[in-house]
Amino acid sequence: MITRAELQLLRSLRDKKHREELGLFAVEGEKIVSELLAAGHPFEKIYGTGAWSGQKTHEIDEPEMARASHFAKPSPVLAVGRIRRSVLEPGELDRGLTLALDGVQDPGNVGTMLRVAEWFGLDRVVLSPGCADLHSQKVIQASMGSFARVRSIVAELDAALEGVRSPVIGCALEGRDVHGIAGLADAVIVIGSEGRGLSDGVKRRLAYCVTIPRRGAAESLNAAVAAAVVCDNLRRAGPKQGEAR
Amino acid sequence: MITRAELQLLRSLRDKKHREELGLFAVEGEKIVSELLAAGHPFEKIYGTGAWSGQKTHEIDEPEMARASHFAKPSPVLAVGRIRRSVLEPGELDRGLTLALDGVQDPGNVGTMLRVAEWFGLDRVVLSPGCADLHSQKVIQASMGSFARVRSIVAELDAALEGVRSPVIGCALEGRDVHGIAGLADAVIVIGSEGRGLSDGVKRRLAYCVTIPRRGAAESLNAAVAAAVVCDNLRRAGPKQGEAR
Repeated sequence: MITRAELQLLRSLRDKKHREELGLFAVEGEKIVSELLAAGHPFEKIYGTGAWSGQKTHEIDEPEMARASHFAKPSPVLAVGRIRRSVLEPGELDRGLTLALDGVQDPGNVGTMLRVAEWFGLDRVVLSPGCADLHSQKVIQASMGSFARVRSIVAELDAALEGVRSPVIGCALEGRDVHGIAGLADAVIVIGSEGRGLSDGVKRRLAYCVTIPRRGAAESLNAAVAAAVVCDNLRRAGPKQGEAR
Repeated sequence: MITRAELQLLRSLRDKKHREELGLFAVEGEKIVSELLAAGHPFEKIYGTGAWSGQKTHEIDEPEMARASHFAKPSPVLAVGRIRRSVLEPGELDRGLTLALDGVQDPGNVGTMLRVAEWFGLDRVVLSPGCADLHSQKVIQASMGSFARVRSIVAELDAALEGVRSPVIGCALEGRDVHGIAGLADAVIVIGSEGRGLSDGVKRRLAYCVTIPRRGAAESLNAAVAAAVVCDNLRRAGPKQGEAR
């Protein structure tokens, strides 16, 4: 059973505005909810139909789920979580590796970059307020559970990057060869928006830009793809001895 | 003006089955159609409303476009192309760099990998028949025009990889460090399906597997992201002198 008020609340959570007002978000789908549970994410409430076998589930029937769901084909589970906003600690960006997203608008790209940041063991992801919303279904789903495990902070990048002592490195076509950054232990890597690239406010905070050497006629690389190549280069400690070249 | 038969044909092209029967495909959207035209793609026919200013356009009105379109929000242009199937030449995979997709099912991933292959100047992409259809709207759109510029061949991988003399290298979590393949000039890189990885038939053709060193708890990387990191490593000629480490 589900009350009319609960239904209305769940349906409202598809909009960022309502998520922010209520401090809640919703995520649907067996795979992603299972991953977040496995990662220890403390959901407020989990609604499931008979087809969902998770613990502590508030059972509802399929017509109720169909009304609550944001999907045309509802999944057997819908979980509601509380939005917990992290803030940057003073000097935090001086230490370790940060991926900063400057207006990355595609939620699939934002989610994929959380996954990339976790794979390469980065310390945090900072998202400018113009990025796709961290608490949207698509971002969480594309992150494949990394949403629950990667420290993510929403912050104005221009201000956050002021005075940072580790190198702040932008990704831009006119940059230096990314192969030169191999082995950096402290750095902020900034990825610009898919359409417009880096913002002017962020550009003035950069030590320099890097680019991925191009051999063909493609105009650009996908933002998440570029982020991963740069992270792989950051994490490269130097040439291996005795291996194939 | 558009005839009822033409409308029916255009609408049928959203299905792979009909595309194959008719030897035609359709692609919609100003940005992608412009990119393909700029790349010299020889469309059979281009339908446009008044809002589309391309040359040699067959003008139709908005209600007609709405009926022809596969989109809920139709774009001002719909272009029809002829499917031209390439086949592998004998010994072709012995030379240069090949990206082989073994059952990659997400059309966004397939399109992004065409773009990745072009960026890194690979010689060709080979797709197993189980991959997302090369001539679907989503693949073409995600390729950002690389669809028209990258040599792409659909082939049974198991057979195509038999007897290939360049190293056939799979991407799999249990593989060797990908940093060891820097600078290979001839190779076939095989990317498995998002859910199931490499197929058994392909596995027996592999010289070895590589993996991207992982530092965090993420279970896997997105397939297109992994392909890009491997391509960057292939294209790396060795350490640069005198650059930051």
